[in-house]
Amino acid sequence: MLVVSAHPEATSVTRQLADISVSTLVKQGHQVMESDLYAMNWKAIYDASDFPDRVSNERLSFIQESAHAYSNGYQTADVTEEQRKLAEADAVILHFPLWWFSMPAIMKGWIDRVWAYGLAYGYKDAGNRYRYGEGGLAGKRALLAVSVGGPAVDYGPRGINGPLDQLLFPITHGTLFFAGMDVLPEFALYSTGAYDSEAMAAGAGAWRERLAGLFTDAPVPFRRQNDGDYPDRHVLSENILTNQRGLTVHTIPGSREH
Amino acid sequence: MLVVSAHPEATSVTRQLADISVSTLVKQGHQVMESDLYAMNWKAIYDASDFPDRVSNERLSFIQESAHAYSNGYQTADVTEEQRKLAEADAVILHFPLWWFSMPAIMKGWIDRVWAYGLAYGYKDAGNRYRYGEGGLAGKRALLAVSVGGPAVDYGPRGINGPLDQLLFPITHGTLFFAGMDVLPEFALYSTGAYDSEAMAAGAGAWRERLAGLFTDAPVPFRRQNDGDYPDRHVLSENILTNQRGLTVHTIPGSREH
Repeated sequence: MLVVSAHPEATSVTRQLADISVSTLVKQGHQVMESDLYAMNWKAIYDASDFPDRVSNERLSFIQESAHAYSNGYQTADVTEEQRKLAEADAVILHFPLWWFSMPAIMKGWIDRVWAYGLAYGYKDAGNRYRYGEGGLAGKRALLAVSVGGPAVDYGPRGINGPLDQLLFPITHGTLFFAGMDVLPEFALYSTGAYDSEAMAAGAGAWRERLAGLFTDAPVPFRRQNDGDYPDRHVLSENILTNQRGLTVHTIPGSREH
Repeated sequence: MLVVSAHPEATSVTRQLADISVSTLVKQGHQVMESDLYAMNWKAIYDASDFPDRVSNERLSFIQESAHAYSNGYQTADVTEEQRKLAEADAVILHFPLWWFSMPAIMKGWIDRVWAYGLAYGYKDAGNRYRYGEGGLAGKRALLAVSVGGPAVDYGPRGINGPLDQLLFPITHGTLFFAGMDVLPEFALYSTGAYDSEAMAAGAGAWRERLAGLFTDAPVPFRRQNDGDYPDRHVLSENILTNQRGLTVHTIPGSREH
């Protein structure tokens, strides 16, 4: 188990939920690893210093240097350590506040730097042959636990912000499922800007319930690239959800409302 | 004019397009400001050091401290300077490579820190009264110029990654339009991982053409919160696109395919 969190305030909703994750899973006998990104002073910016040994010292290509660093053991120690945790984990929970409908920069920088070529993309150095359901993180579960300042109604099917699952699609589908993970439906607490201790207790209870299903709940049925739905590995077969388009066609209908 | 870019390599597609933006607009007589985030060593992580004078030294609430810092002049100098550039700009172009279907962390951190309470949200200290078409950045144009490593087909209406405009919705709608900006359809170059000088020349030409329409092209017709489509300011009127749901209902149909 790996619990990643991105909030500097120990009493924040985000960090309280992360603490619950750790204590609950430890109590259940799981080996729990933590990455409290603010406490670790995680380096968010992906740059030349991520590549102490370069393929080219003249021109910085992130893909080329990531491949070189990952496959030859030239990554920085902080990145290697996070990848070690990922390798040992059978599930990963990402706790973060929703800032501008996405992750805080510190957590995006965790993805940018740790999701290396050869691990999370370019698996087996085979381009996009393995992605979306297969890849270096296959077999692991992933779950987002998001603290949302605004009210739930704004994130409903016709809410003004857009539905939360579609706003998070670049993360759930494009980042976690892309690398092979089984992604559970996201957990969210809303209106957390106005949380009092009663609301927090209710939210904590709801989170404990979701945590109990971490290893048994059904993942979001995103379509796997190599199971036949994408005959050319790029475009959804015209026989599936014919005439439909957009993010939602990449989820098998039935278990989730869109 | 403000040109913001997020790539450390001067010869990258991202930076080449940003250079074209600057030189073209200068030639046209515009006053052009630049924020080359890597060159500026921009601080990506939004944390306690953003608030030298605190409402509460015990508990860090970003919203509360952002409001206090913005309205009382307690922000850090780097944030104040970016807000000054924004205030002077009539248009903002964001140049970035698409990393995990979103911005690099350094640019997300520019948004996280610069998009302050009182400016980009909580405008006039009136909660969500002014947002989506109104707010502190109203009257300014915004345009994303994105370098995409993968092929265009993956981002088509039924492409496996999802359509680019929907993947970018948290930025175009949720960040730029939220704060009041008129957002132009995003510009993208694809398969940039394999760019040679010929492809770069073609991409540069396409970008020059789009730049020429910066002040004349029609913005994406996102629905404004306070123009009647959201009677309660939260949910789209049931008389509009009845029975439809998802991100796309927030754009007035007609000018854009979804």
